[in-house]
Amino acid sequence: MTFTLFTRPGCMKSEIIRCILNEKSVDHRLLDVTVSPGLETAEKVFGAQLTPAIADKDAILSDFDVMIEYIDERYPHPPLLPQGPHNRATVRVFYKSLVSDLYPMLSKYLDTSSMDAKEALRSQIDLLSGIIHSKSFLLSDEIGVADCTLMPVLHRVVNEDIALPNPMSRYYQRLMEREAFSAIFR
Amino acid sequence: MTFTLFTRPGCMKSEIIRCILNEKSVDHRLLDVTVSPGLETAEKVFGAQLTPAIADKDAILSDFDVMIEYIDERYPHPPLLPQGPHNRATVRVFYKSLVSDLYPMLSKYLDTSSMDAKEALRSQIDLLSGIIHSKSFLLSDEIGVADCTLMPVLHRVVNEDIALPNPMSRYYQRLMEREAFSAIFR
Repeated sequence: MTFTLFTRPGCMKSEIIRCILNEKSVDHRLLDVTVSPGLETAEKVFGAQLTPAIADKDAILSDFDVMIEYIDERYPHPPLLPQGPHNRATVRVFYKSLVSDLYPMLSKYLDTSSMDAKEALRSQIDLLSGIIHSKSFLLSDEIGVADCTLMPVLHRVVNEDIALPNPMSRYYQRLMEREAFSAIFR
Repeated sequence: MTFTLFTRPGCMKSEIIRCILNEKSVDHRLLDVTVSPGLETAEKVFGAQLTPAIADKDAILSDFDVMIEYIDERYPHPPLLPQGPHNRATVRVFYKSLVSDLYPMLSKYLDTSSMDAKEALRSQIDLLSGIIHSKSFLLSDEIGVADCTLMPVLHRVVNEDIALPNPMSRYYQRLMEREAFSAIFR
């Protein structure tokens, strides 16, 4: 096994990468940087969190978007980006907006427990619930990068006893029935 | 012709996209948002600059990285990302670091004319000069996205009478001899 994912407890972006690796059955090991003194030192030197990062053969990557493209190209089966330039662009824009908008919203709620943050989060989930109405997964009938990106958020929302609206609740169950996901979000 | 690039005078990222479109011989029109009142209003509403953005058939994209992937997938000949997941990841990391590090460095110099900013810029160019030593283009013997990303910076550096070190100077000449580039940077 050569694939290593550098992670830390609770790192949501690492969970996205783990979902992707599991869906593709990529054998990998997790390396917790918080119990590896050399890596914590490296983070202090660089002044930035190193997680998630991946090392695979001679490739070492820490840019999140580049990691996603790399994994989908290097381990193409099953593809987790759709066919066709336009559909691929749509999924890329979508998962990036989840990371840039929904993730900070969730973090704010988890950090502050404020009612405003909770309402903002709930209203975003409601909006998303509307778009999975017609398909089995996000924007598609096949599982993909967008689903892997949403899952760490949904799991925490459910754990916080925020009720998911109905289409989203069924969708969450569908994800949890997948071995790739249930192995991570028990 | 259906491909539109939304741009404004002096927009360096638009110039990157233009280099890419020209290298691929993609017929396109430029739409200057500063002379199109509706678009300026849209920018005020969104609170963000809309340039560069592209509209191609039913795809409308404003995320820079997503645009690059879209254009290379939709107009694959010639490819401007290399073959192989690892090489592709390397070029993606490289061009993104040019945009995130070198572009602000140049802007700072152009805005302030400070000697510190000039030295910072010059030392980055020197570093880059070292890596084009062994190949015709950046990281490759074929023209690619990295070259298209560096060109708008080099053109301004030369116009500011900052001398390019020798390998970089020859490389700049090679780029300027290409019709795709000379049509933009006259």
